[in-house]
Amino acid sequence: MNSFGQRFKFTTFGESHGIALGCIVDGVPAGIKIDEEFIQSEMDRRKPGKTKFETQRKESDKIQILSGVFEGLSTGTPISMVLYNENQKSKDYSNVKDLFRPGHADFTYFHKYGLRDYRGGGRSSARETSARVAAGAIAKLILKELDIKVQSGICEVGGIKTNEFDFEYSKKSEIFTLDKNVEDKQKAAIKEALNSHDSIGGVVVVKVTGVPAGLGEPMYHKLDGQIADAMMGLNAVKAVEIGDGIDSSRSKGSLNNDQITSKGFKTNHSGGILGGISNGDDIIIKVHFKPTPSIFCEQQTVDINNEDKVYNLKGRHDPCVALRGSVVCESMMSVILVDMLLLNMNSKMDYLIKVYK
Amino acid sequence: MNSFGQRFKFTTFGESHGIALGCIVDGVPAGIKIDEEFIQSEMDRRKPGKTKFETQRKESDKIQILSGVFEGLSTGTPISMVLYNENQKSKDYSNVKDLFRPGHADFTYFHKYGLRDYRGGGRSSARETSARVAAGAIAKLILKELDIKVQSGICEVGGIKTNEFDFEYSKKSEIFTLDKNVEDKQKAAIKEALNSHDSIGGVVVVKVTGVPAGLGEPMYHKLDGQIADAMMGLNAVKAVEIGDGIDSSRSKGSLNNDQITSKGFKTNHSGGILGGISNGDDIIIKVHFKPTPSIFCEQQTVDINNEDKVYNLKGRHDPCVALRGSVVCESMMSVILVDMLLLNMNSKMDYLIKVYK
Amino acid sequence: MNSFGQRFKFTTFGESHGIALGCIVDGVPAGIKIDEEFIQSEMDRRKPGKTKFETQRKESDKIQILSGVFEGLSTGTPISMVLYNENQKSKDYSNVKDLFRPGHADFTYFHKYGLRDYRGGGRSSARETSARVAAGAIAKLILKELDIKVQSGICEVGGIKTNEFDFEYSKKSEIFTLDKNVEDKQKAAIKEALNSHDSIGGVVVVKVTGVPAGLGEPMYHKLDGQIADAMMGLNAVKAVEIGDGIDSSRSKGSLNNDQITSKGFKTNHSGGILGGISNGDDIIIKVHFKPTPSIFCEQQTVDINNEDKVYNLKGRHDPCVALRGSVVCESMMSVILVDMLLLNMNSKMDYLIKVYK
Amino acid sequence: MNSFGQRFKFTTFGESHGIALGCIVDGVPAGIKIDEEFIQSEMDRRKPGKTKFETQRKESDKIQILSGVFEGLSTGTPISMVLYNENQKSKDYSNVKDLFRPGHADFTYFHKYGLRDYRGGGRSSARETSARVAAGAIAKLILKELDIKVQSGICEVGGIKTNEFDFEYSKKSEIFTLDKNVEDKQKAAIKEALNSHDSIGGVVVVKVTGVPAGLGEPMYHKLDGQIADAMMGLNAVKAVEIGDGIDSSRSKGSLNNDQITSKGFKTNHSGGILGGISNGDDIIIKVHFKPTPSIFCEQQTVDINNEDKVYNLKGRHDPCVALRGSVVCESMMSVILVDMLLLNMNSKMDYLIKVYK
Repeated sequence: MNSFGQRFKFTTFGESHGIALGCIVDGVPAGIKIDEEFIQSEMDRRKPGKTKFETQRKESDKIQILSGVFEGLSTGTPISMVLYNENQKSKDYSNVKDLFRPGHADFTYFHKYGLRDYRGGGRSSARETSARVAAGAIAKLILKELDIKVQSGICEVGGIKTNEFDFEYSKKSEIFTLDKNVEDKQKAAIKEALNSHDSIGGVVVVKVTGVPAGLGEPMYHKLDGQIADAMMGLNAVKAVEIGDGIDSSRSKGSLNNDQITSKGFKTNHSGGILGGISNGDDIIIKVHFKPTPSIFCEQQTVDINNEDKVYNLKGRHDPCVALRGSVVCESMMSVILVDMLLLNMNSKMDYLIKVYK
Repeated sequence: MNSFGQRFKFTTFGESHGIALGCIVDGVPAGIKIDEEFIQSEMDRRKPGKTKFETQRKESDKIQILSGVFEGLSTGTPISMVLYNENQKSKDYSNVKDLFRPGHADFTYFHKYGLRDYRGGGRSSARETSARVAAGAIAKLILKELDIKVQSGICEVGGIKTNEFDFEYSKKSEIFTLDKNVEDKQKAAIKEALNSHDSIGGVVVVKVTGVPAGLGEPMYHKLDGQIADAMMGLNAVKAVEIGDGIDSSRSKGSLNNDQITSKGFKTNHSGGILGGISNGDDIIIKVHFKPTPSIFCEQQTVDINNEDKVYNLKGRHDPCVALRGSVVCESMMSVILVDMLLLNMNSKMDYLIKVYK
Repeated sequence: MNSFGQRFKFTTFGESHGIALGCIVDGVPAGIKIDEEFIQSEMDRRKPGKTKFETQRKESDKIQILSGVFEGLSTGTPISMVLYNENQKSKDYSNVKDLFRPGHADFTYFHKYGLRDYRGGGRSSARETSARVAAGAIAKLILKELDIKVQSGICEVGGIKTNEFDFEYSKKSEIFTLDKNVEDKQKAAIKEALNSHDSIGGVVVVKVTGVPAGLGEPMYHKLDGQIADAMMGLNAVKAVEIGDGIDSSRSKGSLNNDQITSKGFKTNHSGGILGGISNGDDIIIKVHFKPTPSIFCEQQTVDINNEDKVYNLKGRHDPCVALRGSVVCESMMSVILVDMLLLNMNSKMDYLIKVYK
Repeated sequence: MNSFGQRFKFTTFGESHGIALGCIVDGVPAGIKIDEEFIQSEMDRRKPGKTKFETQRKESDKIQILSGVFEGLSTGTPISMVLYNENQKSKDYSNVKDLFRPGHADFTYFHKYGLRDYRGGGRSSARETSARVAAGAIAKLILKELDIKVQSGICEVGGIKTNEFDFEYSKKSEIFTLDKNVEDKQKAAIKEALNSHDSIGGVVVVKVTGVPAGLGEPMYHKLDGQIADAMMGLNAVKAVEIGDGIDSSRSKGSLNNDQITSKGFKTNHSGGILGGISNGDDIIIKVHFKPTPSIFCEQQTVDINNEDKVYNLKGRHDPCVALRGSVVCESMMSVILVDMLLLNMNSKMDYLIKVYK
């Protein structure tokens, strides 16, 4: 089950410390200009080791396209992309070989599969998300041609919220924050966590503009459902909100309904989605990341024989996984939108007539 | 896209005011005792008109099984269930024929399909969830044989939280609340909303006990992702939390990690899921419902020609959709768990040997 | 796995002697005129008991639409159709309860599921194909709007081949034959089989005209592959040929290649499909049905305890299943074509621009 | 749609003259010994240029595993395999750039996608089947542990049939024939085609022994349907037969039924499949390949502007694609069987109890 999407579908492979990671993107319509520089620039946004707020693992994350592109254009055949691990042998994992790191997927992978690749979490490592960013970059090339824009940023770190959503600023910020006025505070919170050998959680906002009304496939492939699946399925995510999210459960109908005028919706409590279908307004969601489970304090755990052990982590880790998570959320959103655009082409007979007659 | 699930898969059909609703449940293993009384009792939990806290539409919601059961046992072939609408002609919908009710899916269905069944919301009505409950009841019959228990209840109404999670009490409560001590307050809040021609939001908790470790299929069919999809896709849901959910994004790793001992996890911040796979601990999730969009105050809207209109709702509606939503959440959770149990049978060669040798 | 199709997808349910059979057709684009009379007329073509060349089981096969249609038009939501069995109690099946009828699926269903509905073959009965015809009728309503025509007929009965493919004649023929000049011979062969308590095989041809080039989804959802799957999966089918089929394996490249001119292909050995994609020429396929396994001679078999038994069939059966199989083949072809038309809308960026800009 | 299978699923990528080809195999149960030498030996059986009866393109076809294997065992995560093209620049394709080669997929790919990679057929080249063989090799490693054996060979070349099915001999034969007594004749026929700048067709037989009864998922994922899909979807295949195939349509029920005794089936006309489910007897199928469309005679065709052209092929080609097709058929059969074994684990509650209790 390593594929995501119905019509724009990507399948990923690879482990944290294996030979390579990558993906096959299937369902890319033919005739799209594949801008490799843009794809690499997306990879670079996610790659580790750029600042002190990220893991110090160094990877160039150079992406190579193996298929599906001819003379600069997509051909309609699968686009395979690969990313070789460069830094995979830098660490000895023998000390965690038989232990389950608390808060990680070690325990569950072992119980599911009966064995596991223990090097850096193997398949369960967030390094897998690099392949999502590659697929997301292809999706963005399509969205661009349709003037749909997906943006993201950090709106909360360790409980410190931003007061504004400045997506342009986020691109320049070392911590991808949406508000330069709280950036120092947020950075301080991360540093404090680092200094106390701890980690902290954070929240990502994704915003989409330019979406046509009509995207989302009732009943069981709704736009909000797919977004929730994609985001909750990311490493460390524990909650997803759409529009007013949790606040709407504490609201009243008279306040929460977005009344409509001939010029558009008067408010956007819904986050641009009604009945699981985009309404044409901006899509706004929030994704909540727990603190990185990799911390440098002593913790209790067990080994594969269920014997009690004390565990002391060593290594390199992001103190706040939400930060680099923002570009991943943005990528997943992009992929979903393209998939929904493709699916929606089948929604009415008018469209068939447009294409075939 | 009206099917849910991979191996235990149900497909629903039907509109609020059409002839019938129902589903086909495909992938039910052969040899399960199909207890029709139990299925009907689940339908009855969800059916409308039982109390003054629910819509006054009266439906007996009698479910009929058309196939897939022989001499009381599932045969491995699709189980089709149908529910005829009895009360579908009680109201004249001509006044909303060309209008989009704010907060409803009228606007988006019209834009997606170019036309819509405007009677009671047509397909987008929460009445569709009756079919989910029928499918969920079949799932529960399977879970029972494996000693897995799914429970649900209301933990919050209009911001009023319960202090305890008493799932037994919820079954008796007219508002499915989890705490008899706050029940009166919560009821009062609903009545107040009713009296002021308004509606309020609420929150459902679902808890699962007895789940084996190992359920969930990385990378893109994770247990948490599927739960998020299923819940967010329900009418009126705007946020989903797993375990500590939003609170975990404000926590630190040292507090949030569930340390492990030979007797089990010391805490359950994760809500029973790590890396998208069940860890054997209780699964706990929260589902946030917005207030019912059907309110009896004047609202601004447009018609299908985008002309400004003032809209005054008449009719029968749940003042707080979260209430009856709880059994639906419980049903969706049950369906997911059975699906995951079936999928997980393919996870290791040991299981193949067990079955085939 | 009771669903067929990716985007135009139908799911069937029901057993030969259960309460009802039917299907949910999902993915019907909105805005199609749903002509119920046409659908019923398709059902009537397949229904049993019309002539002495068919089983004498009498069923009116009246189809009822339960959802997905509003004011005569498809709404984009699932169309559910149901067919109640009327004649299901006419026979006592207690004598075959524990026996496996040779040539039937009794043996395999029992071994797969551990139990089976033995009444008339239960789910494995060709009666299930009535639901396919209903779904096919919806597909044909779409094809009509795009001027694509699917026709079928019998080209061979018990080795007696037709010399021409007169699809119009087939519609009038009691045995659906494509050639009135051999009809008497073919009828005589069937009668002889009947008289000797035996059965015979036959071959169906399906021809499609008006198909655009480009239908079929490499690599693993090719047009020829899907046709082969759909046809081979029909009861009693043991071979499928496309274009020259078997003859092409005995041919040479210089004879078998369809050379191309500016006016089109010079020949059609390929049957209208190259590389799994339609080339715009007529699609022509042949479907080979084995003789009905239900014969009235003594046969050896075993019971569910693997004890040797002698079996003597009683009952009503088609002497040549190929006959009524032709409309089923036609229906499956129609469903595939609509599915492929929908899928192909995603093949190039030009189409996205047409729909969204 | 470049994935095949439901639970054991592989996705392929790559073009004839691109950088690399390969696949991701998803759904491999954990704990299987991954024997890389065996996988390479399977690749070697299919690789081109071994004899004068094959294309003279030289490729080492060295397969590299990038993920999913740890310490020699499958981990349950996707196994990615890649094959770099070595000989991809040896030919100038500018002369076919704008032409459609008769009998090839050039015409249909161009019409579907609006552009195409014209180098050696691009994605439509049979070179893609190398990735299928890699996936099939993984499948065979699983089948081996369950004592299921899949074999194949050539039973007909240009109409010259083998009198026996000696699968061991086939492995040694330069033309994979099943009968050493007709080998010289068959070779002579191929040489004659080569000498006259032509090509010829052929037929592959695949036989499976040791299959348990019960494999195949009614109604729309039947074992025979899936086999037909997989085989018909192979390059150049135009007909598929199961068991007696075409002959059964000319037979009578009394001859064609396989009667059953307590010691097994008395005959095997069905080819081991009844009602789309394996009956435990040997599975036997035939796959008919048309002659290679690449021939060295002058042919009429058109260019992308639909102008008439005369076309003269140059290059390296298999004179009889059926030959190397046999190992590909065998691979596809292996993949299907593993998929069906995995799916069938969900067929009855007994199996769930075995795994979970």
